[in-house]
Amino acid sequence: MFLGDIIQNKKINNILQKMNNEDFDGMILTQINNIKYLSNYSPTSFAICIIKEDPVILTSQMDKELANKTSSLKVEEFKSFSDIVKLLKKEKFKKIAIESSLPVNIYKKIEGKWDLEIKDFLETERMIKSSDEIDKINKAVAISHKSFKELNILEKREKGTNEWEVAYELGYLMRKNGAQEESFETIVATGSNSSLPHARCENKKLETPILMDWGCKFDGYCSDTSRTIVYSEKQEKIFNIVLEAHDKAIDYIKPGIKVCEVDEIARSIIAEYGYVDNFIHSTGHSLGLDVHEKPTISKKDETILEKNMIITIEPGIYLEGEFGVRIEDMVKVANKGEIMGNLPYKI
Amino acid sequence: MFLGDIIQNKKINNILQKMNNEDFDGMILTQINNIKYLSNYSPTSFAICIIKEDPVILTSQMDKELANKTSSLKVEEFKSFSDIVKLLKKEKFKKIAIESSLPVNIYKKIEGKWDLEIKDFLETERMIKSSDEIDKINKAVAISHKSFKELNILEKREKGTNEWEVAYELGYLMRKNGAQEESFETIVATGSNSSLPHARCENKKLETPILMDWGCKFDGYCSDTSRTIVYSEKQEKIFNIVLEAHDKAIDYIKPGIKVCEVDEIARSIIAEYGYVDNFIHSTGHSLGLDVHEKPTISKKDETILEKNMIITIEPGIYLEGEFGVRIEDMVKVANKGEIMGNLPYKI
Repeated sequence: MFLGDIIQNKKINNILQKMNNEDFDGMILTQINNIKYLSNYSPTSFAICIIKEDPVILTSQMDKELANKTSSLKVEEFKSFSDIVKLLKKEKFKKIAIESSLPVNIYKKIEGKWDLEIKDFLETERMIKSSDEIDKINKAVAISHKSFKELNILEKREKGTNEWEVAYELGYLMRKNGAQEESFETIVATGSNSSLPHARCENKKLETPILMDWGCKFDGYCSDTSRTIVYSEKQEKIFNIVLEAHDKAIDYIKPGIKVCEVDEIARSIIAEYGYVDNFIHSTGHSLGLDVHEKPTISKKDETILEKNMIITIEPGIYLEGEFGVRIEDMVKVANKGEIMGNLPYKI
Repeated sequence: MFLGDIIQNKKINNILQKMNNEDFDGMILTQINNIKYLSNYSPTSFAICIIKEDPVILTSQMDKELANKTSSLKVEEFKSFSDIVKLLKKEKFKKIAIESSLPVNIYKKIEGKWDLEIKDFLETERMIKSSDEIDKINKAVAISHKSFKELNILEKREKGTNEWEVAYELGYLMRKNGAQEESFETIVATGSNSSLPHARCENKKLETPILMDWGCKFDGYCSDTSRTIVYSEKQEKIFNIVLEAHDKAIDYIKPGIKVCEVDEIARSIIAEYGYVDNFIHSTGHSLGLDVHEKPTISKKDETILEKNMIITIEPGIYLEGEFGVRIEDMVKVANKGEIMGNLPYKI
């Protein structure tokens, strides 16, 4: 048995244990990254995984060669939903767990026949990263930071490069340095665009300030970092407030506290300076195979931090029509919060 | 009133008409491209649109500036699902249409209070493209073909370029030529990788044959094309069969026939040569704001072709462990099937 198989089996066993504790005999997965997490196979079209003592993935004819090559779980061909219903009946399941993201049309096909309950066992399991996962995330962080340095954004500004060209060159550097792809569309939001937290790159020369939010994937695992390069006195003032919120939130992190308390720390500092209405998103989020995972570092999330969770801390202040500043780091929860990488804040 | 508003209103009116015909008083949308289709606002995080006489989009605080700037429909801030429930109650809705993709956790929040029925009114409406949409798709096709020519793939092969570098350069050219982004991750599958229909680019020099599948977005609208460059006699033989299936399927296209008949034409030609088990996917799919839209050109889909539908025709033969060949064009349904663009098949 290869090490890879043992890791996969441990994951399956943990899920089976969780299911067993609540009397579930089966679980249905359709989320691509839940299937990848358990099997190492990343579906490129519709696939469904049935978790039971002997789990099986049903996938399209088109994806079968890929699935057979990469999956540690048994693979069969998905032909129709009536086959799924037959399979579930054959297993004599009574209580089946489903993901909260299951599309309602699939839910409707199995509703009424079993006791179906939304249980995000996978999302909970995926919150705590294994050392293998942490290694991959560290690698993604290192590549994305190295590539950002090589990009030399200050020189790009002097040259009058366009926003999308900067994003594109960064993507090239990350791939050259060993990444698979971006973990999300790189944000290069400059001038008044920086007040839109999820601004899209435009075909215009870099203005100021320059807000960049970028990350890459290494073997499926994501990084996510933001920096803002400020030019005016007012931008600098806002930058310092955001950095203080960022630092104090990270200082507060340790196992045993609720994530909403971390959000509250960042928010209260921004409030002290009178900008709380301009901090228009959560303080951060967990990440791994997906760039947004549970928990969200927000007012409403009461998840308790545990060792080996990895979260972002990314406070921001957005002045509509003027500019925005966001500073984001990834933090590993150890005895305290450990910032991943050491990319400077002042570029 | 601007032309943009009139187009949007026509779309809303068509949906309201469809709802009215089946006694729906409301419809709930969460699919990003359904919301973009009706409002022009493309959500960057969770948003929900309630269709009624006076439609409204509820979006995150973070996305509000963007939504206010771009949406032709009224925008409010989404705070919680209990607000949505209140809104639905206030409207005194009885029968509400939902999308088949609605996540089950959202469905569960409103289940039991109303008569909820899955109705893909938007998907049906989006099947027939307006002249404005066709213009944008034509633009996307033109950019993606021009960029492919500029790439000079034969030269890349001689130079020993890597698969991912080819994909990346094509992405650069498409953006330089005016595209927003790729419509999906460009496939450059060479050597035995070409037998995986959705292969990912690898960090290896181009082998043979070279199967490329690429597209770009222009103002949100997608293109999608595949070409395979063959080198050996056996590859050439398979190429000719696939091209015959492609040509005859396109020749068969006209308004009034079922899409499964088009699939049957392509499949029967490949069967004649004894390769039907190696044609492991559908013959094609519709596309627009999404790269895969309804209908699918497959055995099971009985949708009848109408004027101004745009579909792909992309038969393929995949010899596991050896190589694969796929040839794909986009076809507009007019009095007959009109191939979009005129990119040669032999490169």
